[in-house]
Amino acid sequence: MKERDFELACPAPLRHRTVQLAHGGGGRLSRELIEQVFMPAFGGAALSARHDGAVVRAPSGRIAMTTDGYVVRPLFFPGGDIGKLAICGTINDLAMTGATPRWLAVAFVLEEGLPMEDLVRVVGSMRDAARAAGVEIVTGDTKVVDRGKGDKMFVTTTGVGVVPEGIEIEPRSVRPGDAVLVSGDLGRHGIAVLSVREGLTLTGALESDCAPLDGLVSALLAANVGIHCLRDPTRGGLASALNEIAMDGGVDIEIDEAAVPVNEAVAGACELFGLDPLYVACEGRLVAFVPQEHAARSLDVMRAHPAAPAPALIGTVLGPADPARRGRVTLRSRIGTSRLLDIPAGEQLPRIC
Amino acid sequence: MKERDFELACPAPLRHRTVQLAHGGGGRLSRELIEQVFMPAFGGAALSARHDGAVVRAPSGRIAMTTDGYVVRPLFFPGGDIGKLAICGTINDLAMTGATPRWLAVAFVLEEGLPMEDLVRVVGSMRDAARAAGVEIVTGDTKVVDRGKGDKMFVTTTGVGVVPEGIEIEPRSVRPGDAVLVSGDLGRHGIAVLSVREGLTLTGALESDCAPLDGLVSALLAANVGIHCLRDPTRGGLASALNEIAMDGGVDIEIDEAAVPVNEAVAGACELFGLDPLYVACEGRLVAFVPQEHAARSLDVMRAHPAAPAPALIGTVLGPADPARRGRVTLRSRIGTSRLLDIPAGEQLPRIC
Repeated sequence: MKERDFELACPAPLRHRTVQLAHGGGGRLSRELIEQVFMPAFGGAALSARHDGAVVRAPSGRIAMTTDGYVVRPLFFPGGDIGKLAICGTINDLAMTGATPRWLAVAFVLEEGLPMEDLVRVVGSMRDAARAAGVEIVTGDTKVVDRGKGDKMFVTTTGVGVVPEGIEIEPRSVRPGDAVLVSGDLGRHGIAVLSVREGLTLTGALESDCAPLDGLVSALLAANVGIHCLRDPTRGGLASALNEIAMDGGVDIEIDEAAVPVNEAVAGACELFGLDPLYVACEGRLVAFVPQEHAARSLDVMRAHPAAPAPALIGTVLGPADPARRGRVTLRSRIGTSRLLDIPAGEQLPRIC
Repeated sequence: MKERDFELACPAPLRHRTVQLAHGGGGRLSRELIEQVFMPAFGGAALSARHDGAVVRAPSGRIAMTTDGYVVRPLFFPGGDIGKLAICGTINDLAMTGATPRWLAVAFVLEEGLPMEDLVRVVGSMRDAARAAGVEIVTGDTKVVDRGKGDKMFVTTTGVGVVPEGIEIEPRSVRPGDAVLVSGDLGRHGIAVLSVREGLTLTGALESDCAPLDGLVSALLAANVGIHCLRDPTRGGLASALNEIAMDGGVDIEIDEAAVPVNEAVAGACELFGLDPLYVACEGRLVAFVPQEHAARSLDVMRAHPAAPAPALIGTVLGPADPARRGRVTLRSRIGTSRLLDIPAGEQLPRIC
């Protein structure tokens, strides 16, 4: 960020160019940070009440709540940064329950010495992502830890949304015969972060797929698609997402490898690093489980929506899992063989989100 | 924690005695952590749905939302630990808006190598504190950062509560003439944490005042006390809490130094370390602004309540602040002089919560 942009972002320039311990101390410096950085970006009615908690008016019925910590390294990557990621990730977790995202809470753990302009830039991304999705950041908190006891910036975002009546989108709703769809090609986020971490240029213009998915889910619901379950394949990628749903829904799932969309640059980088794209994180894709008879309509809706760049029918729910074991996922390969798509022990790429 | 207690807490013992990067990777080790540590402690209906977000049924009307990161060092201190602190702190922030705390979300950022038994112990404290207050932990998240990039454990808790109709407890509701009350003696939490950090024994049996305050607020509301504003004096202590309300409510406040309750051990430790108890954090005390004619009744309710060990009327709201400056707080000393009780730059004791 240029000096001038920084000055514009901080109309009354902060006294310090780096984050100090006192910025998290609850005193004058905390207040400066709130008034000069957070309020100009996030300031809505609830935040302006300047209280320990925000009070908002919710309709009667069900609300959804989700929380996620973000520790991605580095903070800035092609196609986004930790701020955009934190907002989109939480919006997406809400959207995966069928909820309309409404209110967000944001908590920062900053490392002493973080350049203030990095914080201002991240806060700007959060503001933009929240505005684009029509959600309000209503409350927040900042703590500062001493140098060497953190890693620049961790962000925890918590979201609350409103669940329309009649919707039961969850692993338990998955049924044998359901079609399994994805909204786009897989693994861009993981490879984009890896590329900047490793200083790669080979991936060319590859950017993270980081994006909000609430609009896409609304479009599917508006088209009366009877969605049984949704999941965004973040940490652990598609393989983890499918395994979780198989286990929690008590079903077996079969995926057709040839049908899974993977961008060429992602496939190339995966080959180079010995990664399997089915295990690489996305931050702007969803997997949908819908009744077979709604599959074609779902794909039509996705094709017409900008948040679904490469919709595909990738598999089927086979049937209830053998009660003697947990639900599992098999992959039918291009040459017709079938293998277990196991849940990984961890993430191939640590600190990807 | 003894080996046996650890085994009891983890019926199917975790394969690893310390936290691994893969515990935050979204794969099998993440799942183990959820199933063997988090679910047994927190498992309610919403958490059991095993989805990206929790869905709960809320009554129509207003909801309150609050978030706080906890980075206290050390993790365990006399009278509590980071887990109890994180639950009580969030419950208290909700209670300060007049809301009934209902649902919590918990996000961990763990440092690789953290002893698993420390995590289990903290999770047990969270479970106990949540149960005692009747709130449900409905969703959560765990990230792991590499060794040296965190400090054992950071916890972010976000709470949602329900605000009864007719309640407007916020800084803007404070009125000239309001009585200023505190529920107990100040500074125990800060001094308890400092004592263990510095290896002090002089403070004897001094424990943190860390405790939930929602019951006390309910009791005041049940007695028809017309509460204008509440604040728990955490970071920056009473002085910061009063200054915030003076500034945000646009009023001047006068405090009577002799009326402010401070425990002898706290006063002694403050003298030793050159600290002012009015700036030392509490985690189980509240400041209440009530109409003067409700002051006596408020004190009666507090005296009858276990969460208010030393209720006191400590001051008065003087009047609207001079429009040319922000609201301010003055302290009338024991010898009758008056001085400005300024907002500190930061916290005298970093990482106290």
